[in-house]
Amino acid sequence: MTEIVTQPSIPQGFPEELVASGLFLLKRLGMAAKEDSLEAYEATGLHPYHHAILAVLDKGQQETQGAIGHALGYDKSQLVGLVDELEEAGLIERRRDPLDRRRHVVHITPAGRKMLTRLRRLSETVENEFMSSLGDDERRQLHDLLFKLAQDHLPNCRFVEKPAQS
Amino acid sequence: MTEIVTQPSIPQGFPEELVASGLFLLKRLGMAAKEDSLEAYEATGLHPYHHAILAVLDKGQQETQGAIGHALGYDKSQLVGLVDELEEAGLIERRRDPLDRRRHVVHITPAGRKMLTRLRRLSETVENEFMSSLGDDERRQLHDLLFKLAQDHLPNCRFVEKPAQS
Repeated sequence: MTEIVTQPSIPQGFPEELVASGLFLLKRLGMAAKEDSLEAYEATGLHPYHHAILAVLDKGQQETQGAIGHALGYDKSQLVGLVDELEEAGLIERRRDPLDRRRHVVHITPAGRKMLTRLRRLSETVENEFMSSLGDDERRQLHDLLFKLAQDHLPNCRFVEKPAQS
Repeated sequence: MTEIVTQPSIPQGFPEELVASGLFLLKRLGMAAKEDSLEAYEATGLHPYHHAILAVLDKGQQETQGAIGHALGYDKSQLVGLVDELEEAGLIERRRDPLDRRRHVVHITPAGRKMLTRLRRLSETVENEFMSSLGDDERRQLHDLLFKLAQDHLPNCRFVEKPAQS
């Protein structure tokens, strides 16, 4: 208790053992990327999760809420909230399914398509800025490696073929 | 409104445009990795953030709370909560700084070192499992790329030299 303490050294950053871990970097970069996306989307009033729903609906079909949730891995209550918000903003519409009047199908409106174009551009900008320290080959390499991990850890990537990269 | 709708196709997973985005995969994998870590740490009653604090303290010096927060990029209130929890668990001790009696320095206890060993093992296991679909070269490649991004996006990585990989 009485030992002499010299001026404590100020650590300059994360301990080496953390930085040596790919998982640590993945978690921290994932959070940083999320923050960047949220910030970029702020002016639209939407969240990347809304973007994902619009992207599903843009494939052309109208979808049941169940199918959208299934495609994106969102649970039901989460999805209903997001779909409500998109509907309030006039970006999607719910209609009764003519095949089964008890359920609704959701489809994208023209305003929704316009917003999707805007969100795609935003998300491309965020990505290009985030990845700007990597060259084209490195970006491709990173995507390959992440896609491989995604096959293992993101159930909603398991049936997706590796797409041509944006 | 009266159009005939054929059975809506069930999308099999994320839309291709999302999977084509490295940023999207990074965000989703970051979340998945975080969940895996939290689950693995559950039995210890600790969070990866506690691990990070113990790792800073294990460098040998006692540190002021300010210095720990600075090293890890935690804000003050967040850090105080974490340090309280570590102290309650007997893993660290706060002492008055003999150089400046108004402030405290924090040091790791023998029980803390023991716990740190356990957490290091846990975190290695989580990482090995998470990365199991990648070969050694791929893991190194991924770490290189993430480290490069970290230099750009994680302020607390900026002064850290690229460590030898675990």
